[in-house]
Amino acid sequence: MIERRRITGFSNPTVKALRALRDKKHRKRERRFLAEGLRLLTDARDCGHVPEILVLSDARDPHPLLAALEAEVAAAGGEIIETTPDILSKITGKDNPQSVAGVFTEFDTALAAIDRTQAPIWLVAQALRDPGNLGTMLRTGDAIGAGGLILIDDCADPFSVEAVRASMGAVFTQAIAQAKWDEFLPWLRGGQGQLVAASLRDAQRYRGAPYTAPCFIMVGNESRGLPEDYELACDLRVTMPMRGRADSLNAAVAAAVLGYEILAYLDK
Amino acid sequence: MIERRRITGFSNPTVKALRALRDKKHRKRERRFLAEGLRLLTDARDCGHVPEILVLSDARDPHPLLAALEAEVAAAGGEIIETTPDILSKITGKDNPQSVAGVFTEFDTALAAIDRTQAPIWLVAQALRDPGNLGTMLRTGDAIGAGGLILIDDCADPFSVEAVRASMGAVFTQAIAQAKWDEFLPWLRGGQGQLVAASLRDAQRYRGAPYTAPCFIMVGNESRGLPEDYELACDLRVTMPMRGRADSLNAAVAAAVLGYEILAYLDK
Repeated sequence: MIERRRITGFSNPTVKALRALRDKKHRKRERRFLAEGLRLLTDARDCGHVPEILVLSDARDPHPLLAALEAEVAAAGGEIIETTPDILSKITGKDNPQSVAGVFTEFDTALAAIDRTQAPIWLVAQALRDPGNLGTMLRTGDAIGAGGLILIDDCADPFSVEAVRASMGAVFTQAIAQAKWDEFLPWLRGGQGQLVAASLRDAQRYRGAPYTAPCFIMVGNESRGLPEDYELACDLRVTMPMRGRADSLNAAVAAAVLGYEILAYLDK
Repeated sequence: MIERRRITGFSNPTVKALRALRDKKHRKRERRFLAEGLRLLTDARDCGHVPEILVLSDARDPHPLLAALEAEVAAAGGEIIETTPDILSKITGKDNPQSVAGVFTEFDTALAAIDRTQAPIWLVAQALRDPGNLGTMLRTGDAIGAGGLILIDDCADPFSVEAVRASMGAVFTQAIAQAKWDEFLPWLRGGQGQLVAASLRDAQRYRGAPYTAPCFIMVGNESRGLPEDYELACDLRVTMPMRGRADSLNAAVAAAVLGYEILAYLDK
């Protein structure tokens, strides 16, 4: 019999502590983050990440994957909490909450933990501010078989609820590193790797450009793009057609269009 | 001398009325919407959309494009309001507000207003719920030279502040139509047009599939994808490689990857 703790009060200290994980400062202090949904939590488990705390909604339907998850959390000495949909909604900040959420320990995001030989493509984002864009880049990275996402300079937090949600589980499958540009560039040049910028500056057409693995695809900040000196340090600057009035794409879209092109090119 | 009305009180009825445009019900009743930023408002003007009301921040810097905009609003009999950054922030719901915002009349979104001969590519979204995804699709549509975005069934509102913001001005350059599937399909079949679904079902590879203009690229709801009968009604179902654990892409990303492929294919 698996032991579950029942919480019904909004002002319960555990509810407050879980809810506080939506706040970056608190999350960084605790080095823990929240993820929601049975599918996502199952992906996490398959990648070796078992939540420390599992929070179940009273409104959940029974599911063999959920039972397996509960058993694994209990076996690992984790805590299982049962609560109302309203309280779960309060914790995750979502109007229609999923029936399950988990609290995970943050991973190591040191650049040194990245093994570039593990994948032909890596995504790099510079000063990316929108957690939804960040999560979408993780999701795209998973789809194109990238090894992970390297966050340069001051980016949104990959462990925010919004980024985790938009990643659709890829936060657990993709390696994530955080570094300053002055750390990243020497690290990159310390091994093989082609740095490719999505750029408008002195750039060649993105289709059929001479890509080589491991290929690092870099996109810049949502409103300012990449700093000029960062672009100039790239091995290749490529550009997508712009047929309308706009002169740029959404950062996550640019990474995806480029990522799929490079995947097809390297597969040839 | 251009006349400006000065507002400094948060409880001013005009502030309340402008702020209410962030609420869908109110927006639909008024048939007006908000757009922010000098770049975006200049794009709007270039496309023939002059705001009825122009709201300026005290913290703005002088700019010839802003002066031109003011003159045009005044000439058209519109109103110009000057206010504090805090009040502008309250109106637009953005922490660091742009220095200018405008109130526009909503456009006609009848399917009958779409002229399919105007562009080789059209985007179609079904039950797209996220206004950011919707705005991003408009932005991508502009970039690939699409004619516009057709919204099928119950989608997010293209005139919400979030959608307009994510569109980066493309809400003014792209045609927008809203229709039920039962209206859209007969309309489509009443003329030339290839309907292409981003799909996992009995689909061929997206690269090099036999696209023809005008090509209508359809993506489905963020969590459920396209209904099966919608997919079966398509002329072509194509799929993108999925190398990781995920079995789908973000809807706006899928539309962009497919859109750029079709642009390249039709250009050949």
